[in-house]
Amino acid sequence: MTAVDPDREDVIVGELLGAPAYVSGEEIARRLRISRTAVWNRVNALRRLGFQVESHPHLGYRLVRAPDALLPALVSHGLVAEIVGRRILHFEELRSTNDEAERLARAGAPEGTVVVAERQSAGRGRMGRAWVSPPRKGIYLSVILRPAMPPSRTAFLTLCAAVAAADAVRRCAGLRASVKWPNDVRLGGRKVCGILTELATEADRINHAVVGVGVNVNHDPADLRGLEATSLKIESGGEVERVGLARALLEELDGGYAALCAGRYGDIVRRWLEVSDTIGRRIRAESLTGERLEGVATGLDEDGCLLIRLEGGATKRITGGDVRII
Amino acid sequence: MTAVDPDREDVIVGELLGAPAYVSGEEIARRLRISRTAVWNRVNALRRLGFQVESHPHLGYRLVRAPDALLPALVSHGLVAEIVGRRILHFEELRSTNDEAERLARAGAPEGTVVVAERQSAGRGRMGRAWVSPPRKGIYLSVILRPAMPPSRTAFLTLCAAVAAADAVRRCAGLRASVKWPNDVRLGGRKVCGILTELATEADRINHAVVGVGVNVNHDPADLRGLEATSLKIESGGEVERVGLARALLEELDGGYAALCAGRYGDIVRRWLEVSDTIGRRIRAESLTGERLEGVATGLDEDGCLLIRLEGGATKRITGGDVRII
Repeated sequence: MTAVDPDREDVIVGELLGAPAYVSGEEIARRLRISRTAVWNRVNALRRLGFQVESHPHLGYRLVRAPDALLPALVSHGLVAEIVGRRILHFEELRSTNDEAERLARAGAPEGTVVVAERQSAGRGRMGRAWVSPPRKGIYLSVILRPAMPPSRTAFLTLCAAVAAADAVRRCAGLRASVKWPNDVRLGGRKVCGILTELATEADRINHAVVGVGVNVNHDPADLRGLEATSLKIESGGEVERVGLARALLEELDGGYAALCAGRYGDIVRRWLEVSDTIGRRIRAESLTGERLEGVATGLDEDGCLLIRLEGGATKRITGGDVRII
Repeated sequence: MTAVDPDREDVIVGELLGAPAYVSGEEIARRLRISRTAVWNRVNALRRLGFQVESHPHLGYRLVRAPDALLPALVSHGLVAEIVGRRILHFEELRSTNDEAERLARAGAPEGTVVVAERQSAGRGRMGRAWVSPPRKGIYLSVILRPAMPPSRTAFLTLCAAVAAADAVRRCAGLRASVKWPNDVRLGGRKVCGILTELATEADRINHAVVGVGVNVNHDPADLRGLEATSLKIESGGEVERVGLARALLEELDGGYAALCAGRYGDIVRRWLEVSDTIGRRIRAESLTGERLEGVATGLDEDGCLLIRLEGGATKRITGGDVRII
C-alpha cells in the first residue's frame, strides 16, 4: 500500500505532460521555484512510480510513457473541479476503497478527498454484495463528502453519482449508458458501474458521506464470468484509457455535488431522468424486508425515491432494495 | 482501559449477590460446574475489581460491598432484556462511548452490545457538542443496534431512548422527567439526560446504529456549572444508585427496541407523548441550516419528526436542529 502525496510529484508531472518535447531541468526548477537537484529527485521519484522519463544532458527531461495507474499526478493533471479530487490518495491494493475512505473521514480528512485503488481484495457493492475488482482493469474509487443536507435527502448523492458515471462513460468511451434506479449504470442492460453510498449520520444531520464508484473499464469476459455485467472494453471493442475516465468521473461528480449543495435537486432529477431507463417501464421491486411490488415506474419524489403505480392505480414509494425491469 | 469479559466474573457475582449471607465455595463450584480453585480465582478477580468479599474457612464467601462501578457483573445481574445488554463491556475511561461502540460495530460486534465508561474524556452530545462526564457520577453508555428499518425512520430510535431514560429515572429515582423533542430528558426544565444516535447507513438501509445515553446521576452543582443542566442527586436531594439505574435503562431500551423492531411505531409515539413536554407548547425551532420557525408543536409525523403549526396556519415538519420551548 503506497499512498502518494499529491504535493510531491504532481507539479512536475504537470510540467512534463504539458510540454511538447524536452523541458530543461533549469526551466522546471525556475517555474516551480525549487532547486535543480530537487527536480532531479522528483523525476527519480516518478521513475520509481513507473513513469518512463528520458533525460538528456543538454535538452532536459522528456516524458516517454506514463504508467498504467490511476496516480494522483496523472488524474489531477488538468482536473477541473472545485471540491471532488482536491486531494487524491492512491493505493496499489485496498480491501475496499469505501472502508479506507470511511476511516479517513473519521480521522478528519477534508471533503473532496478521493481514495483510489488499483485493486480491491474485498470490494463491496450494495447490500453487502461483493464487487469484482481485478487489478488495473477498473476504476475503484471513493469520495469523502460532508453535505449539509438532511439524511432523508441522501438518495440524491447516489443519483448524482450514477449520472456522473453515465456522463463520464459517454465522454470517454462514446457509449450511451443508462441508469437503473437507484444506482446501476448499464450498457445494453448489463451493469458496467455500481455506486455504493455510505453515510455516518446523527439522527438529523450527516457527519460524512462516502460515495464509492466502481467502473468495469477494461475487464475481459473472463473477469465477469457468471455476472450480469459488462465492461467498456467489451462493449466498445477496445481498451479505454482509465486515467482520462477517472478524471472525467471526478469532474462530473464535482458538478453534480455542486448542484446538490446549492439545493438544485430539480436539476439532478432532470439529468437523472435523461439517462434513466427505469421511468415508464414495468418494474418489480423487492424491499429490504422482502415485500414485493409490481407496477410502472412513474418518477422520483422529493427525496429521490422511486414512485411506482400499482395495478389498482395506487402510487407507492420505493426507498431501497432491488428493482428489476420486466 | 479495562474491558471486563462478562463470561468471567458475572456468574460468581450472581451467586454472591443472590445469597442471603455466606455461600460455601463447594456449593458455588457445584452450581457453576467449576473447580473450587476456579471459584477462589474468580473471587480474587472480583476483589481486584473492588468487590469486598469475606471468606471464611468453614462458611465460604460473603459479598460485603460491591464497588461503585457499572461493572457488567453488577449491571447484568437480574437484567431482564432480550437484546440490549446481551454483552456489556466496561471501561474505566473512554474518549467517548459512542466512538468505541462505533469501532466495535464496524468490527462486527453483535447487536445489543453495550459499552459503558466510568468517565469520558471527550464525551459528545448532539451536533458536535461536548457532554460533561465526570468520573463515577453519571451513566455514560452506548448500545449497538442493527435495526432492519429504513434510515428515514431512525428518529424513532432517539424517541425510544428518550422515553426509556425518562422511565428509568422515574423507576429508580422517583422523579417525573419530561422529554423535549427530540432527545432531551429534563427535570424542571433542565437537562438531566441526553441521547446521541449515530448511524452508519447505505442509502437505503442501516448497517448499524449506536445509541448513546448520558445521564447526570450524582453530579453536584459544581460539575454542571454554566450548563442548563441538573442531576438526579440535585433534584432528589440524595445519591441515586447507578447500577440499578443503568439496569433499568437497559431494560427500558430493550422494551422500546422490541416495539420498534415489531413496527409498533404507534406505541412509541404514544409513550413519547405521555412523557413529552413539547406538544401543545409554543416553540422556536432553528434548523441545521439556520432557518428559524416559530409556532405551536402539534404532534409527530410518521417518521417521528416534529410537526409545528405556524402563525399563518400552515404546518411544517422539523427534522432536526434545536428546539426551544418559549
